[in-house]
Amino acid sequence: MNSAWWQAPVAQLDTAAQEQARERQLQLTKPPGALGRLEDLAVQLAGWQSSSAPQLEHLWISVFAGDHGVVAEGVSAAPQAVTGQMLRNFASGGAAINVMARQLGATLDLRNLGLAKPIESLAAVQTLNIAPGTANFLHEPAMSAEQCQQALLAGRDALADAVQQGSQLFIAGEMGIGNTTAACAMACLLLDLPVAALVGPGTGVAGDALQHKAAVIEQAVRRHAPTCHSPLDVLTRVGGLEIAAITGAYLAAAQQGLPMLVDGYICSVAALCAARMNPACREWMLFGHRSAEPGHGAILAALAAEPLLDLSMRLGEGTGAAVSVPLLRMACALHQQMATFAEAAVAGGDR
Amino acid sequence: MNSAWWQAPVAQLDTAAQEQARERQLQLTKPPGALGRLEDLAVQLAGWQSSSAPQLEHLWISVFAGDHGVVAEGVSAAPQAVTGQMLRNFASGGAAINVMARQLGATLDLRNLGLAKPIESLAAVQTLNIAPGTANFLHEPAMSAEQCQQALLAGRDALADAVQQGSQLFIAGEMGIGNTTAACAMACLLLDLPVAALVGPGTGVAGDALQHKAAVIEQAVRRHAPTCHSPLDVLTRVGGLEIAAITGAYLAAAQQGLPMLVDGYICSVAALCAARMNPACREWMLFGHRSAEPGHGAILAALAAEPLLDLSMRLGEGTGAAVSVPLLRMACALHQQMATFAEAAVAGGDR
Repeated sequence: MNSAWWQAPVAQLDTAAQEQARERQLQLTKPPGALGRLEDLAVQLAGWQSSSAPQLEHLWISVFAGDHGVVAEGVSAAPQAVTGQMLRNFASGGAAINVMARQLGATLDLRNLGLAKPIESLAAVQTLNIAPGTANFLHEPAMSAEQCQQALLAGRDALADAVQQGSQLFIAGEMGIGNTTAACAMACLLLDLPVAALVGPGTGVAGDALQHKAAVIEQAVRRHAPTCHSPLDVLTRVGGLEIAAITGAYLAAAQQGLPMLVDGYICSVAALCAARMNPACREWMLFGHRSAEPGHGAILAALAAEPLLDLSMRLGEGTGAAVSVPLLRMACALHQQMATFAEAAVAGGDR
Repeated sequence: MNSAWWQAPVAQLDTAAQEQARERQLQLTKPPGALGRLEDLAVQLAGWQSSSAPQLEHLWISVFAGDHGVVAEGVSAAPQAVTGQMLRNFASGGAAINVMARQLGATLDLRNLGLAKPIESLAAVQTLNIAPGTANFLHEPAMSAEQCQQALLAGRDALADAVQQGSQLFIAGEMGIGNTTAACAMACLLLDLPVAALVGPGTGVAGDALQHKAAVIEQAVRRHAPTCHSPLDVLTRVGGLEIAAITGAYLAAAQQGLPMLVDGYICSVAALCAARMNPACREWMLFGHRSAEPGHGAILAALAAEPLLDLSMRLGEGTGAAVSVPLLRMACALHQQMATFAEAAVAGGDR
């Protein structure tokens, strides 16, 4: 494929706006650097929004759901039906990400890429049904090339809707029983690291069950490694429908110039895949929360990413990104509203 | 002194409300523990508020300002006049803590314990003038016993106002050029640790100036150690007016049953002093932010405290506490608004 849509260039950062924001930070009434990462956030947002007064009024959260054939191997603590049950919970407003979206005044967008057993149609959910979940990648590729393309485009479509609504920040979330298994297999292949460095409990497998999960991933990685010649191959063979959609959304976000706040383990693997498919898209990413899932550290290190928070969360749904939004808003407010040394007649600024 | 006010018992936690909250967390639609510290926060707040639906609408922030005689030794990067200049900046709404208080809808209360050179009276500031700043503790005690008592009571008064206004969370902040020097000397004496383990740049001293600051603290600690027989002695001899006020506010907060969110380096030393004066008051403390000031870690360790955030901030004013408030509010909203497994017909809850 010699000119896939995701290879098109990403949007340009406004480095002049960043420089201006950095200058302003030095004039605000505080010792230089004393607001730490809040200063860096204001500077980054200024560059992304090409504005000396960045702000984050309009947030967009897309949650992508999909099932995973590899669940047949007994890799998850929760039954597969929970994917659909949680989709209903999202639709009726009862999940953690719903509460957070309401608190933040964010638009919550729900997309069903494909469940193993279809559920009734839900008004709040866009249903795509690309496949009845992925195939069991222990035995065959998770997706066909066609299905993977459709899922990538589904993410790009969500992103286009976010842009069209005037969103200033994009958050992706996921729901899919079995998706830490898929994400772990992807990370092993993308990073060429052993399963032991990347596997974790997901919804809560432990002891022998965790050993079994690791063994399944190891076998799958051995099976697919010889035919994985690109990040797209990895995504297709051991990924998931929702992971592909998030990857597509991230690629499109960078191209459209919409900054993205990346969630935990699953989303970081999608971010890694996107950054391998088009490296410049990394410039448009921020990371919200360091997951309690132990392999997240290695994935973040590969992305040179330092999340804002570390609250021992491991839920997914986009919650690790959403919970960090108030920090970004605080950074914007401080940047715009603090007095300068000159305005306040405070000694400093030349220190 | 055999029955000081701060030795009176602290308020009782409602452990039954905590237990109920812990039970509810296990029924919410997420893997148990997947919201990490947000779950613990909801449980703690339930115990503090004696409520199954804790909330944090009404926040109170008291910023205490005072000058430090030890500044004469050249221990600060900023001139002493900045304490008063920043007090004006607080009064006119231009400092970082003003912006944060507005963002959070918090009441911002300003108290001037005593400047080296008095400034004009400011409508937004309660002026106490207990002393024209502390004395230079390199040569003599920072405060008289009487002055320290007055400062402790000034903190208790602020806390009483917070309670009277129906506040649900108390944050203290400070402003005082030279107060990392005082706080460091206090920490050395309270923890019996060497200056090197606790000293840091404050507003920005580095290199030789930092060595000089450390030497001044070392000399002061040697001078006062033989006559420091209690935490109150430490506070009186090498503390500060604003640090004593914060200590008094923390002691009163625990007695009144108002949970407190402790800020960075200076406030943590006040928290340590309060916890040494009445150990049970530790039960009512949360910690907002791990300061970039390198000695903060040792102080937190002595308090068995793990702050919520680590954003490389080192500003004071209460900003490290204030910036973490949205996490507490998110914890409350999740606890109250998420659906249970039964309500949402999602499999789980018995995992």
